[in-house]
Amino acid sequence: MAESSRIYTAALIVIGDEILSGRTHDKNIAQIAGWLGVQNIRLSEVRVVADVTGAIIEAVNTLRARNDYVFTTGGIGPTHDDITVDAIAEAVGVPVIVHPEARAILEEYYQTRGGLNDARLRMARVPEGAELIPNRYTGAPGIKFQNLFIMAGVPQITAGMLEALTGTLEGGAPLLTETIGSWVAESEVADLLRQTEKAHAGCQIGSYPFWREGRTGANFVVRSTEADQLAACTRALAEGLAAIDKAAVVGGI
Amino acid sequence: MAESSRIYTAALIVIGDEILSGRTHDKNIAQIAGWLGVQNIRLSEVRVVADVTGAIIEAVNTLRARNDYVFTTGGIGPTHDDITVDAIAEAVGVPVIVHPEARAILEEYYQTRGGLNDARLRMARVPEGAELIPNRYTGAPGIKFQNLFIMAGVPQITAGMLEALTGTLEGGAPLLTETIGSWVAESEVADLLRQTEKAHAGCQIGSYPFWREGRTGANFVVRSTEADQLAACTRALAEGLAAIDKAAVVGGI
Repeated sequence: MAESSRIYTAALIVIGDEILSGRTHDKNIAQIAGWLGVQNIRLSEVRVVADVTGAIIEAVNTLRARNDYVFTTGGIGPTHDDITVDAIAEAVGVPVIVHPEARAILEEYYQTRGGLNDARLRMARVPEGAELIPNRYTGAPGIKFQNLFIMAGVPQITAGMLEALTGTLEGGAPLLTETIGSWVAESEVADLLRQTEKAHAGCQIGSYPFWREGRTGANFVVRSTEADQLAACTRALAEGLAAIDKAAVVGGI
Repeated sequence: MAESSRIYTAALIVIGDEILSGRTHDKNIAQIAGWLGVQNIRLSEVRVVADVTGAIIEAVNTLRARNDYVFTTGGIGPTHDDITVDAIAEAVGVPVIVHPEARAILEEYYQTRGGLNDARLRMARVPEGAELIPNRYTGAPGIKFQNLFIMAGVPQITAGMLEALTGTLEGGAPLLTETIGSWVAESEVADLLRQTEKAHAGCQIGSYPFWREGRTGANFVVRSTEADQLAACTRALAEGLAAIDKAAVVGGI
């Protein structure tokens, strides 16, 4: 496939009361953000919503209208609080059906695990017209419906589904980055950052302060889709920083 | 203050390209979710948005209309990519001013750190009418404007601002929870969960599966604002689970 210069974007919807209650620390945002980067797709927005049909529908419809892809995690298990499939089917206006291949997968998976009961069969339900995303760990597949990718919430199982999707989504121009880290306060180099960004078209410089061991520092991240511009901007920034902080580290701190 | 039976909700907006790129793993969602729980306020929704004015404005206006409180993290530093204050002022329709007390705080903080330059003075800018949230670590304060709480993105600094706010926000009825953990697959007890929830008005049961050491288990969380109902529902669920899995653990796994 020829590399496109257009930018492809994705949004992520994390579905689950357990994240909103603070009980479970989300790991899927960073996992999916990193994975999308490798696919040359940019994560444009994330929403964490409750296990509430209306909240899921609103997020799905808003985000799919303005992104190339929408991913969801969570709420596709066998219990009464797993409502993602029904909510998404309602959002896209199709009925929910039992997918024959998903049913066959579950029948085989549960053959040695107590058999396929009604609760487990819920995990074969998909919006009509959907395809499956293999789950190499626990049987129940993820679901692809048009540009929606419906995945499990347990991070290890999500990871397996991402692996199954690797290389299957069209991406755009890779976003190239370089990082320079420094123990200088970002407030001492704000002018340098702004001027350097302005002098290099097509480059963005992000400033990410941190606070460790009782003192402040920052990593400065230069981003561009053009390798030459990235290199020139990074060189200019490194030179500017070296005049203020000789210990600035290309590669980041 | 008399305890209210109404439920108070908050939304969180995490502002920052560094989370969306996967570069930085967010720690503020769980931190703020947990803190809100202690204040008897429920986190209803989280959005992670890019350092883009329009994205911030959309999130602020949507979420403040339907929540008692809205918190933001990130984008209040001294550099060109820190646009949170300007975006929020635009969202609420007031000008940005330099807050005299914030300016005084920064003057003192930077007295021994190279002085207050233009970049650092940016951190005294607030939407007109705002109050300050103390920052005990690095000078630059957070901002309270009506029901909006604008906080730093560096998690340790966010934590200091939350401490400063502790006990100052009106909350509602505490949400009480009990957890029962089991190595039984949630798909074996789905009927039990649904029936137990149905039999206990005012209780919700969440099922949170996990996958560890090559096998599945789940924590079942019972939630209610009524202590008696919570106790009865938890007892019924524990008895039901014990019939299937003698090793079920009240308190969770």
